[in-house]
Amino acid sequence: MKIVIVGGVAGGASAAARARRLQENCHIVIFERGKDPSFANCGMPYYIGGEIQERNKLLVAPVARLRERYQLDVRTETQVESIDRHAKTVRARNLASGECYDEPYDKLILATGAMPLRPPLPGIDGAGIHTLRDLGDADRIYKIVGEGARSVVIVGAGFIGMEMAENLVRRNLNVSVVELANQILPPWDREMVLDLTKHLESEGVKLYLNASAQSFRSGKGGVQIDLSTGTSLQADFVVLSIGVRPENTIALAAGLEAGPRGGVRVNANMQTADPDIYAVGDVVEVEDVVSGTPTQIPLAGPANRQGRIAADHCAGRDSRYRGTQGTAIVGLFGKTAAMTGLSEKTLQRLGLPYEKIYIHPTHHAGYYPGAEALTLKLLFDPTTGKVLGAQCVGGLGVDKRIDVLAVAIQAQMTVFDLEEMELCYAPQFGSAKDPVNMAGFVAAGLLRGDHPIVHAAELATLYESGTQIIDVRTPQEFNQGHVPNALNIEVDQLRRRLPEIENQRPVVCYCQVGMRGYLATTILRQRGFSARNLSGGYTSYRQWLS
Amino acid sequence: MKIVIVGGVAGGASAAARARRLQENCHIVIFERGKDPSFANCGMPYYIGGEIQERNKLLVAPVARLRERYQLDVRTETQVESIDRHAKTVRARNLASGECYDEPYDKLILATGAMPLRPPLPGIDGAGIHTLRDLGDADRIYKIVGEGARSVVIVGAGFIGMEMAENLVRRNLNVSVVELANQILPPWDREMVLDLTKHLESEGVKLYLNASAQSFRSGKGGVQIDLSTGTSLQADFVVLSIGVRPENTIALAAGLEAGPRGGVRVNANMQTADPDIYAVGDVVEVEDVVSGTPTQIPLAGPANRQGRIAADHCAGRDSRYRGTQGTAIVGLFGKTAAMTGLSEKTLQRLGLPYEKIYIHPTHHAGYYPGAEALTLKLLFDPTTGKVLGAQCVGGLGVDKRIDVLAVAIQAQMTVFDLEEMELCYAPQFGSAKDPVNMAGFVAAGLLRGDHPIVHAAELATLYESGTQIIDVRTPQEFNQGHVPNALNIEVDQLRRRLPEIENQRPVVCYCQVGMRGYLATTILRQRGFSARNLSGGYTSYRQWLS
Repeated sequence: MKIVIVGGVAGGASAAARARRLQENCHIVIFERGKDPSFANCGMPYYIGGEIQERNKLLVAPVARLRERYQLDVRTETQVESIDRHAKTVRARNLASGECYDEPYDKLILATGAMPLRPPLPGIDGAGIHTLRDLGDADRIYKIVGEGARSVVIVGAGFIGMEMAENLVRRNLNVSVVELANQILPPWDREMVLDLTKHLESEGVKLYLNASAQSFRSGKGGVQIDLSTGTSLQADFVVLSIGVRPENTIALAAGLEAGPRGGVRVNANMQTADPDIYAVGDVVEVEDVVSGTPTQIPLAGPANRQGRIAADHCAGRDSRYRGTQGTAIVGLFGKTAAMTGLSEKTLQRLGLPYEKIYIHPTHHAGYYPGAEALTLKLLFDPTTGKVLGAQCVGGLGVDKRIDVLAVAIQAQMTVFDLEEMELCYAPQFGSAKDPVNMAGFVAAGLLRGDHPIVHAAELATLYESGTQIIDVRTPQEFNQGHVPNALNIEVDQLRRRLPEIENQRPVVCYCQVGMRGYLATTILRQRGFSARNLSGGYTSYRQWLS
Repeated sequence: MKIVIVGGVAGGASAAARARRLQENCHIVIFERGKDPSFANCGMPYYIGGEIQERNKLLVAPVARLRERYQLDVRTETQVESIDRHAKTVRARNLASGECYDEPYDKLILATGAMPLRPPLPGIDGAGIHTLRDLGDADRIYKIVGEGARSVVIVGAGFIGMEMAENLVRRNLNVSVVELANQILPPWDREMVLDLTKHLESEGVKLYLNASAQSFRSGKGGVQIDLSTGTSLQADFVVLSIGVRPENTIALAAGLEAGPRGGVRVNANMQTADPDIYAVGDVVEVEDVVSGTPTQIPLAGPANRQGRIAADHCAGRDSRYRGTQGTAIVGLFGKTAAMTGLSEKTLQRLGLPYEKIYIHPTHHAGYYPGAEALTLKLLFDPTTGKVLGAQCVGGLGVDKRIDVLAVAIQAQMTVFDLEEMELCYAPQFGSAKDPVNMAGFVAAGLLRGDHPIVHAAELATLYESGTQIIDVRTPQEFNQGHVPNALNIEVDQLRRRLPEIENQRPVVCYCQVGMRGYLATTILRQRGFSARNLSGGYTSYRQWLS
């Protein structure tokens, strides 16, 4: 059998290695546009920033090893230009020599990845305007910085844009970031990244939200970028990180089907409509595990799994891809944001019913030194309690909680299962009631009716329609900032100060993070008040308000 | 309703707080033998070691707050001496005044915890021989160290013994540890803690394994401890941390049933045979989640969950405890050991079928600076692939992997599910193929027949019976140490050096951690050799050999 793989990074490299292990005697050709297949593309920003000091570290599997150890017929700097499905050949062009030739295949695996978006704006193809897709791009930006660039404008505040912002600040550049949305890191819900936004600004990143680049003018002094807001920015160079689109050109030209956002359609075996052609990685459309709807999530983990599955199926095995759940993480100046499953905005867009809760625990026992704060948002089905999504932002321990919740989603667990999780506890690692348990308690309490909640966005309207807002923190906490029109009755005094609260009007309690507010709510409810707690307390209110 | 709780730490404190939230109008009495209910007992070694600098930090919920906020009738320094099940009263003794009285209950929750074992050895009750159960004990040891003690003998190398060893080294004491077993941290399998043992020794801890204390002699110069090995040790003081037994005296005297190791028997609602008496925490016997057999696991997380469930049931709710799975963690001199589910030795003791694999990945992408090594052992059902247990030892990232695997066990997942897990990946947090995925690949490969393995303990016998052992690492690696009688054929040369291997005799391949050995095995098997890989490679061999 002869397997031809187009694209040698992540999905393509995984497919090749797996194919070799399964079929020692097949001929495996791997075409790679660039000079280096199997490079660590997720490491490029950190190479540019100097955190990864040796460029060689990015070459996960050098060509020589792929050839010798895996007996791969690696053809670098070779572009596949078309597929002839009837002849079962691909047309390849050697980018160095210009030579073209047809390469036959029995099975073809497309791992062409995704292209950075480059919208047709005036001047966008001028000098000094870069994207970051492959090592060549990384080398170019590395060189510019090394030659003394002092300022950069990054267009797009997604993963790559934000990681580039951190790493270019590390290189002492003046960094401005332009983002069309009203938040950084658009996959997250907005209120979850507002503290992180302030943190970025405090580290020197200038953010221009609700703004788009309208035109670029390259000149001797660098690049001028005119924004939709009327502002003009000037920088030594520009990094475009607006997003990516599947590199589907040859697939579409061969008549293979793609979804509305350009992802090549595949079945669970990663087969396209042509049973001899597979597609994996950033070029495909996959099924979202939680919603069952088609999605495109260009990340390395799913790409690797998909490559493995395509290789399995080429070898006659019925391995099946279970879908992508969107687990993602980004580290920025010592803080971390991670998520898994659906965001609230995606749930809203899909019209799916959900409930949500917020908690603000520390990453390990508070009595042990070094406990760092984190904010955890949990999204779940209001009827069954099934976990639909989770987002966590903070310092240490963020990755662990999202990994645990990613498994919970994979296993279709409910918030009631989170209550029962038995996780590692010693004071330097966690808490006897881990943040994930706590999220389960709060969410399950809501579903059982023990712990009715409201959210920060509802407070003003509730107050206007007659709800009493009770701040159950200490007077000291209250005086440092509180919800407008709140009455301060400390939880420890609540039972004796009940006469100050009107029995006929609904009540919302809140404290700093939600614990004392919960107790206050239970005290009031058992005394006949219609009381609810503000989820996440004043901390969530403040985050929402930002 | 009147709920009486005996014991105010972990399980008792959780039960009290939960009972109050559910039933604002019930009378809740909580008896605590010591001065402080709800103290952070897991923090005591770190207070003694100076890591936690303020004693107040250990008082998680001060008495005043329990009284005011939770309206608990807290009676400290009061010992409950007996239960009258017919009268539904407990007899309480005020330890300060000596006064005794009967306290009636509607529901009684026993959270009496466990007592450190103190075997009847000559001199064991002499001066300078301490255990660590409550804050009074911690204060005593803290004082001894503060007054200039220079040396300590710790008897027992379990959690508390090892944490005390670390913390007393931190206080510059000469620390010796005596342990009856042939390893430290007996809940783990021996080969998993051998590197950690060397690490402890390199930090100055003197270990006496396979040794028991036979007698103690207290005198002016401290304590002399005679060991079963004939050695005598001398130290300023002794800490006994041999283990604990359930504090079941009043339960047994009241005719309640206990298991063979003394744990009070309860149903899933945490009810004893007397429906008005509950028991929670270290005093009970629970069901092991994986094996379904009775077990006793004295840890804070389970105790807290059980307290909650007892309070729920008192309030008429059918909350049920799902059992304990033995998730545990300990940090020692910058290294971490964690586990969940059953160990290999427990599986053997119970006669349950299992398979096991070892991997040695780094905690995040190897190309990003700071990657720390970890060793992960996975135990699983040889037929279904169901995960039965996992142990992990290393630096950073150990807690995360065991938490993920703890959830996998809770969800009854298989090794095939581990392959598909979608976990956080950015280079500073993990790998595109996370260690948990890798463990899944290796284990699933074994079950699918793609990746037959052997273990280090089998090598000598295999060689004697005619198996060829091939070291597929580089000559440089080989020359730094290898398995006796191994032939060195680097994996990259294997295909052309096949004639050096006899086709008629079985083969075991190995490399450094198992990856190249796996590829070599697939190369050989597809060419008709009967080949297997050494799980975990030379690294596992070396750990096993220690």
